[in-house]
Amino acid sequence: MQGIRDGIVSEAGLIAHGRGEAFDYLLGERTTEEALEACDVAAAHLLLARRPVMSVNGNVAALAAGASVALARGVTEARGSRGVAEPRMRLEVNLFHRTDSRVRMVVAQLREAGEAEPLGEAPDMRVPGLDHARALCSSAGVGGADVVLVPLEDGDRAEALRAWGRTVVAIDLNPLSRTSRAAHVTIVDELTRALPALQAAVAALASRPDGGLRRIVERFDNPASLARSLDRIRGRLPALDLAPPDGRATGPSRR
Amino acid sequence: MQGIRDGIVSEAGLIAHGRGEAFDYLLGERTTEEALEACDVAAAHLLLARRPVMSVNGNVAALAAGASVALARGVTEARGSRGVAEPRMRLEVNLFHRTDSRVRMVVAQLREAGEAEPLGEAPDMRVPGLDHARALCSSAGVGGADVVLVPLEDGDRAEALRAWGRTVVAIDLNPLSRTSRAAHVTIVDELTRALPALQAAVAALASRPDGGLRRIVERFDNPASLARSLDRIRGRLPALDLAPPDGRATGPSRR
Repeated sequence: MQGIRDGIVSEAGLIAHGRGEAFDYLLGERTTEEALEACDVAAAHLLLARRPVMSVNGNVAALAAGASVALARGVTEARGSRGVAEPRMRLEVNLFHRTDSRVRMVVAQLREAGEAEPLGEAPDMRVPGLDHARALCSSAGVGGADVVLVPLEDGDRAEALRAWGRTVVAIDLNPLSRTSRAAHVTIVDELTRALPALQAAVAALASRPDGGLRRIVERFDNPASLARSLDRIRGRLPALDLAPPDGRATGPSRR
Repeated sequence: MQGIRDGIVSEAGLIAHGRGEAFDYLLGERTTEEALEACDVAAAHLLLARRPVMSVNGNVAALAAGASVALARGVTEARGSRGVAEPRMRLEVNLFHRTDSRVRMVVAQLREAGEAEPLGEAPDMRVPGLDHARALCSSAGVGGADVVLVPLEDGDRAEALRAWGRTVVAIDLNPLSRTSRAAHVTIVDELTRALPALQAAVAALASRPDGGLRRIVERFDNPASLARSLDRIRGRLPALDLAPPDGRATGPSRR
């Protein structure tokens, strides 16, 4: 995981990354059918949104600053081609362990990746129901958004954003997490695979009329999608190898 | 997780901790029947051993220095009561990312927890098949041991110890890990629950004759025990709640 040593990723972020790794392993370390379907639904939300915003935390910046900027650009272009009033998808930095210096680092990293105006350094609003530092957001970003993409988000904030009326699109490897359950759409996939997959879905649906996109959104059932991911894990478990790596049976030891 | 900030736990250690957390959640965050049975088998190995040694890495020291020292003391006392030639169970520090200063810190932590002579600062042997730093061990410790307890061990070292003829007892929350599969006995449980459980098993079996302990060891089948842990996860998955936390169904969003 690049970007750890420069202080962008917190200790809690590293532990969370490990939890994700475990679920990625159980899911087969590839983008699943249900994740691709969730990408289509997420893309439809981003295209239909009045103002879509992506929230970027330390882990997201460390793992996928470039892919995040590329996705926002792809969404902005696709929305522009549809002639919507405010085509631009903004990126807003929001850190679980917020310090001004960490926010500046992540903003600088997004700038370096090509985002001209990352938000997050000058928050002027708060998400209701969260502690001070976690609640901070921008009226030009999450505060004024109707659809919020939250990759690797913690459960409290995902729930608070939903309760605040935002449509929440999560990217989370744990289909059982509070974030996954709080989201309207959960893409259960590893971040660096999910972002390009979502960008591809946006491009593929860019010319679809609003009615078609709404049908995609309305047909979707997030708990059912999460249940498919769990079924995938259940189905995989018996096939996984438990024999010792040298191929011999692990019988009793002799001495 | 205490002891993170003082440099004892590495970044890789934090990620590994997160992977363990995910499996702990899937297993139900409690000591299972199969873990208790594995504790009995591990205890029998430790009591029958010619020279048992526990390997201590940064995560183990940060999470359970006191419980590690208490276990070694309990094993030593139980072996002493049986009149074995070398009753003492030693603790040896072995770090994945070894530096002299980190070894000194972990040794100091074990001393503070009550271990008079932790090993690891003056290695004089190597485990065959491992890179230099990872291979280092002491002839008074892992080098001269027949039974090695390796909590939270990495797969390479667990396999190398097994290939070197040691009886390997692992504590690992991931029943699918290479460590879990390489071990002769894997206690699939969270470290701070597993160590006291293992200590209790040692005390309970302290007066059991050698023949009885050997039967416990010989009856045990580690792949079958790991399969029981996997079955437990499989069985739990359908019961886990996928509904959004507010209790309402996650239907399509409206805007």
